[in-house]
Amino acid sequence: MKFKIPFAGRHRVVIDRLLPSVDGGQFPFKRVLGDQIRFEAHLIADGHDKIRAHFCYRRRGQKSWTELPMRDEGNDVFAVDWTPEDIGVYEYDVAAWCDGFDNWHAGFVKKAANQDPQIGVEVQIGADLLKAAAKRCKGDASKELRSWVNHLEKDSVSLSEKSGLLHDTYVYDRVHAQPDRSLETRVDKPALLIVERELAVFSSWYEYFPRSCSDDGETHGTFKDAEKRLPEIAKMGFNIVYFPPIHPIGEKNRKGRNNALETVDGDVGSPWAIGSAEGGHKAIHSELGSVEDFQHFMESAAKQGLEVAMDIAFQCAPDHPYVKEHPQWFKWRPDGTVQYAENPPKKYQDILPFDFETEDWEALWFELKSVFEYWIDKGVRIFRVDNPHTKAMEFWRWCLLELKTQYPDTIYLAEAFTRPKRKYRLAKAGFTQGYTYFTWRNHAAEMRSYLEELTQSEVKDFFWPNFWPNTPDILHEDLQKGTRATFIGRYALAATLSSNIGIYGPAYEVMDHEPFPGKEEYNNNEKYQLKVWDWEAPGNIRSEISRINRIRNQNRALQRTNNLIFADTDNEHLLAYIKQDFDRSNQILVVVNMDWRWTQMGHVTLPLNVLGLAENQPFRIRDLFDPRETVYEWKKARNFVKLDPSRSPAHIFRIER
Amino acid sequence: MKFKIPFAGRHRVVIDRLLPSVDGGQFPFKRVLGDQIRFEAHLIADGHDKIRAHFCYRRRGQKSWTELPMRDEGNDVFAVDWTPEDIGVYEYDVAAWCDGFDNWHAGFVKKAANQDPQIGVEVQIGADLLKAAAKRCKGDASKELRSWVNHLEKDSVSLSEKSGLLHDTYVYDRVHAQPDRSLETRVDKPALLIVERELAVFSSWYEYFPRSCSDDGETHGTFKDAEKRLPEIAKMGFNIVYFPPIHPIGEKNRKGRNNALETVDGDVGSPWAIGSAEGGHKAIHSELGSVEDFQHFMESAAKQGLEVAMDIAFQCAPDHPYVKEHPQWFKWRPDGTVQYAENPPKKYQDILPFDFETEDWEALWFELKSVFEYWIDKGVRIFRVDNPHTKAMEFWRWCLLELKTQYPDTIYLAEAFTRPKRKYRLAKAGFTQGYTYFTWRNHAAEMRSYLEELTQSEVKDFFWPNFWPNTPDILHEDLQKGTRATFIGRYALAATLSSNIGIYGPAYEVMDHEPFPGKEEYNNNEKYQLKVWDWEAPGNIRSEISRINRIRNQNRALQRTNNLIFADTDNEHLLAYIKQDFDRSNQILVVVNMDWRWTQMGHVTLPLNVLGLAENQPFRIRDLFDPRETVYEWKKARNFVKLDPSRSPAHIFRIER
Repeated sequence: MKFKIPFAGRHRVVIDRLLPSVDGGQFPFKRVLGDQIRFEAHLIADGHDKIRAHFCYRRRGQKSWTELPMRDEGNDVFAVDWTPEDIGVYEYDVAAWCDGFDNWHAGFVKKAANQDPQIGVEVQIGADLLKAAAKRCKGDASKELRSWVNHLEKDSVSLSEKSGLLHDTYVYDRVHAQPDRSLETRVDKPALLIVERELAVFSSWYEYFPRSCSDDGETHGTFKDAEKRLPEIAKMGFNIVYFPPIHPIGEKNRKGRNNALETVDGDVGSPWAIGSAEGGHKAIHSELGSVEDFQHFMESAAKQGLEVAMDIAFQCAPDHPYVKEHPQWFKWRPDGTVQYAENPPKKYQDILPFDFETEDWEALWFELKSVFEYWIDKGVRIFRVDNPHTKAMEFWRWCLLELKTQYPDTIYLAEAFTRPKRKYRLAKAGFTQGYTYFTWRNHAAEMRSYLEELTQSEVKDFFWPNFWPNTPDILHEDLQKGTRATFIGRYALAATLSSNIGIYGPAYEVMDHEPFPGKEEYNNNEKYQLKVWDWEAPGNIRSEISRINRIRNQNRALQRTNNLIFADTDNEHLLAYIKQDFDRSNQILVVVNMDWRWTQMGHVTLPLNVLGLAENQPFRIRDLFDPRETVYEWKKARNFVKLDPSRSPAHIFRIER
Repeated sequence: MKFKIPFAGRHRVVIDRLLPSVDGGQFPFKRVLGDQIRFEAHLIADGHDKIRAHFCYRRRGQKSWTELPMRDEGNDVFAVDWTPEDIGVYEYDVAAWCDGFDNWHAGFVKKAANQDPQIGVEVQIGADLLKAAAKRCKGDASKELRSWVNHLEKDSVSLSEKSGLLHDTYVYDRVHAQPDRSLETRVDKPALLIVERELAVFSSWYEYFPRSCSDDGETHGTFKDAEKRLPEIAKMGFNIVYFPPIHPIGEKNRKGRNNALETVDGDVGSPWAIGSAEGGHKAIHSELGSVEDFQHFMESAAKQGLEVAMDIAFQCAPDHPYVKEHPQWFKWRPDGTVQYAENPPKKYQDILPFDFETEDWEALWFELKSVFEYWIDKGVRIFRVDNPHTKAMEFWRWCLLELKTQYPDTIYLAEAFTRPKRKYRLAKAGFTQGYTYFTWRNHAAEMRSYLEELTQSEVKDFFWPNFWPNTPDILHEDLQKGTRATFIGRYALAATLSSNIGIYGPAYEVMDHEPFPGKEEYNNNEKYQLKVWDWEAPGNIRSEISRINRIRNQNRALQRTNNLIFADTDNEHLLAYIKQDFDRSNQILVVVNMDWRWTQMGHVTLPLNVLGLAENQPFRIRDLFDPRETVYEWKKARNFVKLDPSRSPAHIFRIER
């Protein structure tokens, strides 16, 4: 039994690890444009030879690499700091080799210092190394090296003069610049990195249904109607507006109000049941307007500083054109119908899933990708993807990496309310952001432990959370039974814990909390009907949301998620945490009373060293959430806090010196 | 810019992780024969489809896989427990697929229970699935399936009868046994596992120089002389005897006593300067005896229950036959000499290293591997490898995996006193055991933190430490200045912390502690001269070593390393720890006073839950190291301990109920 030697045997450096990287580099890790990234390679060779290493990077799809020399930090660690110059998908790699010249030079210098009798031989070796270096380059560089070689080989030149030349730092630098890299080691497969734009990490989404925006609240609203809401949304401080799917809604098996199996006349159906004789995923529901109207909406939004997110739901109503045009993309039953989505006893008769095991999978993948491309071409850059966990994992991995490579400014939010490993796998597959379990973390301790998982475990490099206190699908019991403090408090929590947040708009502001009986869902859900909203309903929390958003927009510490540090409290209802800008120029301390009904008080213990403060050094904290912006002076780690939810469920302090 | 779809697109399950595995499976992790291994795969698919998975393993080099069904533990975790039936190198993999039949069956059962009107169509689909299963098998299995299909397709059979057939568990099991695996997913490259024999994890090495074993202590000792020491070594409770290299010693540039550059007549030279006109790595130094004498020595050792370890040092004296026969394996200088080993200003003129960058590297690799094979053929199974970190990393990875595949009972101890990452890389490359920094951990806190790194970090799966209180190269200051308690205490520490240990024999027993001035080395080192040992020197610690070894041999808890759990103490000199057998049938508590001079006392806090004890539940502890085996009764977590090093530096308690 003999195995072939599978290695490049003469290449003596091994790359034991390359950091950061996700699963050995096969999935991209994420950073934001402007971030300085420290790359670390663990490079191991035998013996005492000097290792040299270059960090190599390129935009995915390019051929040639840009190289940066790495510094030897000792203990086999080589590092480089790099700030990517642009957003995009990058590949990175390391080139490492035992450097014959550096190695000889270090020994030569020591031997010369020790007046080693063998120094003549060392000079000869040096001359040979210079000669080899001259062969590796051209033009002036080569000429210069050859001139030194001639000098070193001349019998008439004294040994000490030759030795002097070889000690010259100018000479050293010139030879060093022409290394012999013929035996360099590279990683088996380059690792991946995605550099995102700011909005990928700091975003405030506002979701609403354009069809509910008509002036009378009774007729079907249009993009034009929805445009009228933009100034108010911008004033509240959001930076993304997001619509549920805007494609034609299936007529066949259309669902009625409250998810009824039968419609009555005028029922508008679920926007997620996509496709009818009018068209499919590349068409616009005619009652909303035309493609031009949608583009006009995007332009109006842009004028208000808002970007528009589109919902992509890869599923078809039974009358979607795909069903006839590509029957092979669906699973047919012996009775000649297509298998609809179900999770017995639940049935989704208005929705047909694609069959990702189809033999025609390649065409299906390209068609689905082309849906994104169609809308990207129309100007959309942000996509909220519906239920990605019901589409093949490897499809996303391919599709998203292709799209991000071609359109680096696009953003993809995964609406995957599923098991943790599947959520994280989707993030590795390329989703920019993901929905989370925030809604179901209703006690301080469980909120802290969840956030520690998100911001301190390995997932922080690839999974960027987006916190939604509500969605059209989810009205949590906490809100159903909640008070005004619950709505304000949970928005404050979301907005200060996570730099990416969103709400399902009018419903949240006016504190709609009527559940469909026995469910975690809204009654008379806008998903199945037009809804009349009293946008100015008394007691609405728009001013509190606006204040929180303004604080987010004005404090860089709140524009990142992984900069979160918890502070201990001695009351189980109080959650306290700090967020810091990278240079500590902006420091926020948040304390939330997660008991939304009763006053809670206790002590918060601050990690003073993290804040750059010393015990007994006084500092001021300004409550930005308090309309009077009350300022307190503290000087110890342990401080008393009291929160009456009927007045305010949260302090959002800025720490000032 | 278009990229090819690099995936098998229809295969919907992804294998997100496979545990245990080292660096994604590219390096082997280690277990001992008899260990039950829990393998875990994180398997993710889209939607609600049922995943089935088989764990696949095979001996490396075999073609066919053995498969074990994995159980779905929820949350995308699939697991299997497997106890390998033999030692060896294994490859393992997972086969996972969305199971169409299981999936249909689960839905069918629910729909039938709900009296779904569509049940007729479901039965038709079931019949189609059975028909497909019949095609996937042969003979009786296929016949049986086809008979059911006929039944299901008969118009005369009632729907309820058909439904009954499809509910039958016997029918279910038969179809389940013929899954459609055409779209199964496998890992990209199988992962590696090495199953070792017991001696790989529980070994007590005794090193001595056969040349110092002559009766008169003056003439050059032989294997025959060394044989006479075997009964005593066996009586002390060791299970491996190990000799420094036994090959011909170079004549050229031979070093004199205390590493002198010049020899005087009769100087025997360093056994690590291998090779002379007599031969090289496949020859025996004639003054020690013949190959037959060596084999006789191995047989005598075996009769005493001892295995013999051989030293492999891949380097050559200047007169080694390789230098003439394979000049291309060495680095030649312009003056016609070979570059000797050096680390300026240190010079090792008697040792020429191989040039692993030689173009003839493949021949070099095969020749070096053949050295192991030569001695394996002669009966050697254990190798202590000298300075492996000065030979190419990838050479070891190839060589050791080949050797372990072919000779699974061989054991390789890496003498790599080098930086941590390089030590660990060598372990990943296939060394069974490695020397450690034990010698340089001289305070309780640093010993604890080092052991936590070894036994609790990721390295525990591939790096198995071997603790040596001394070696011919290392006489630590702690021992130089040590008392009898130091020698006893450090042996007790080594032997109870690590299941693999060794000493450089007579020197340790008789407490030789005279350093070469200013160095961490022995004076008049046996490496360069014959040494006269008074094996029975008064005050020797042979009986203490014997007692400690007997305790190790009789208590399974001490025969593993990774079962270590520290207990807190309130005295910085006291180190306390527990070792447990896998089923807690054997529990050892060790307390060592690492102040070798003064009495220290304090409290040890036991993790009672780990010991399976309750607070206030009395238990007995028997001090096995105390010749009187004193028994104490404790009943609390916190207990008082006092150790006077002049009496005994350590307690080795067995916990008894």
